[in-house]
Amino acid sequence: MPVLTDQSPASDDIRTLLGALSGPDEEAATSARARDLTLTKPAGSLSRLEELAVWLARWQGRSLPTCDRPAMVIFAGSHGVAQRGVSAFPSEVTGQMVANFESGGAAINQLCRENRIDLSVVDLGWERPTRDFTVEPALSHEELTEAFRRGREAVPEGADVLGVGEMGIGNTTVAAALYAATLGGGPGTWVGRGTGVDDAGLARKEDAVEAALARHAEHLDDPWQVMRRVGGRELAALAGAILQARLSRIPVVLDGFVTTAAAAVLHALDPSALDHCLAGHVSAEQAHAAALERLGLDPLLDLGLRLGEGSGAALAIGILRSAVAVHRGMATFGEAGVASKVAEQ
Amino acid sequence: MPVLTDQSPASDDIRTLLGALSGPDEEAATSARARDLTLTKPAGSLSRLEELAVWLARWQGRSLPTCDRPAMVIFAGSHGVAQRGVSAFPSEVTGQMVANFESGGAAINQLCRENRIDLSVVDLGWERPTRDFTVEPALSHEELTEAFRRGREAVPEGADVLGVGEMGIGNTTVAAALYAATLGGGPGTWVGRGTGVDDAGLARKEDAVEAALARHAEHLDDPWQVMRRVGGRELAALAGAILQARLSRIPVVLDGFVTTAAAAVLHALDPSALDHCLAGHVSAEQAHAAALERLGLDPLLDLGLRLGEGSGAALAIGILRSAVAVHRGMATFGEAGVASKVAEQ
Repeated sequence: MPVLTDQSPASDDIRTLLGALSGPDEEAATSARARDLTLTKPAGSLSRLEELAVWLARWQGRSLPTCDRPAMVIFAGSHGVAQRGVSAFPSEVTGQMVANFESGGAAINQLCRENRIDLSVVDLGWERPTRDFTVEPALSHEELTEAFRRGREAVPEGADVLGVGEMGIGNTTVAAALYAATLGGGPGTWVGRGTGVDDAGLARKEDAVEAALARHAEHLDDPWQVMRRVGGRELAALAGAILQARLSRIPVVLDGFVTTAAAAVLHALDPSALDHCLAGHVSAEQAHAAALERLGLDPLLDLGLRLGEGSGAALAIGILRSAVAVHRGMATFGEAGVASKVAEQ
Repeated sequence: MPVLTDQSPASDDIRTLLGALSGPDEEAATSARARDLTLTKPAGSLSRLEELAVWLARWQGRSLPTCDRPAMVIFAGSHGVAQRGVSAFPSEVTGQMVANFESGGAAINQLCRENRIDLSVVDLGWERPTRDFTVEPALSHEELTEAFRRGREAVPEGADVLGVGEMGIGNTTVAAALYAATLGGGPGTWVGRGTGVDDAGLARKEDAVEAALARHAEHLDDPWQVMRRVGGRELAALAGAILQARLSRIPVVLDGFVTTAAAAVLHALDPSALDHCLAGHVSAEQAHAAALERLGLDPLLDLGLRLGEGSGAALAIGILRSAVAVHRGMATFGEAGVASKVAEQ
């Protein structure tokens, strides 16, 4: 096992990347907003759908947004802390679910098929868990860098919208540690029942997060070191995919509680790093709503989901498709010969 | 113009129909719930999607629900009260929008195309407005009966889910009158800005509803007479479509504020009449949330929409499609060889 120090090359990598992020294309956004006002409906009457079309224009950098080639990438990782009984499921389930994704039997397969989203699964090694973060850093610098790179490489070329999600037994505990370290608040603020742990399991989750925060207390100032010490491979890969999408002008739809924890690390590094991201939904995991609010993200859907796998992001992409269909397909007042307002009252 | 009395033959019709409604198929619902528990996800982790599949099973009367042939019907009507300056748009827009629906240029056309929903538009005569309900009953008995019948006839044979929506300049004022008469509360409780009326228009809406309630005060005990006196053709047709769908075992997705007002009249006649209905969304029209709560309906989406046309119902049907895809397509724990729980902790 390599010697672990806090002089991380990955830390430099991600900061270089953050410095190179492009900003919004306000010209495209203005153009989309102007088109919206000509469409045969009262101004503002499709509210969130209108905003989604403008948001896509802004971050795709084109005045007529598209959602023709949406992609979903889910990252699977494995966690040393899972040995501490923090999940209702055994660690092997991560590998079994990767196989299930690959054979098309999981929820996300159906959701992607129904919403015509290209799905890819990146297995970051379920048989290769991170170290137990209550005892030592979860990842070495090299492991962190590799996972981040895998995330960047996973963004499909030619996608016009990217959904991101994850799978990893134990990773709501990891997410809680990331939130606590980047947003503040004790373990009790961020620990929840995940996929359905009982009261004893919930207590073990809180204990694990508390132990991790104590163990790494001297090293939590740098958000990227937080990722290395109390994060995980799929979390680091999510961060890589989110940033790579920004570089490639692909707007990102975040999934739930765990995915948002990766986003929280990016936000701690640079609050503008999430400007191209939409929160697909707010999950039933109790602290997700609070996390989204702290990150300034307004979730599109609220369906009580707590599965992960990108499930909420896939449903949100379905709504995005509709927003684009409306924006591109509707007749204008002029084309349809519809009066746009009362002449006088 | 016919002599109008309150001895309505339509009143008998609808009560006969209400007496003939079939109940839920709890066997099908139980079977769907049992299948859900075998799917490769933690129990309850897809929450609202799981409930939607069970709800479809219950009201379609089959253990494996479908959403293969969803249909959307929108009803267009015209209102005498619109002359009173209660809308931001002139009455002619109803007819212009019917033409826009027919040529495929409206929002609902794009939403139905994107979500693969068969759309039909029933024009109840935009050139034939109801009477001004501040002065006299909006409809004759015969007109009410005809509109109700048109609604029943509009339900497509072979549809497995029905979305319902409407178009009619002035009809948020009509809806407010229906809510006030069936749910109680003054005009101020139910009147809102509709498609975007200004403060003066808002005051005119309140005045119109107040005048209508005073004019018809002696005749508001019978909900179906409420529909005749302060309703409208598209509202009566919506009631007909909702009940016909129940008879044909087609679960119904309601659209927004106006559609829900037709549902409120049915609820006042028989609270169980809406058991097969899902509220597709809660709209931005201020009183819609309160109306849904009073009717015991929990909206699926909250996107700030206030267009009508079935737009929120169409998006909700997209979510229903996903719920069915998950329910029917996922592998079971047995099929996928995934461990369903921790053996011991």
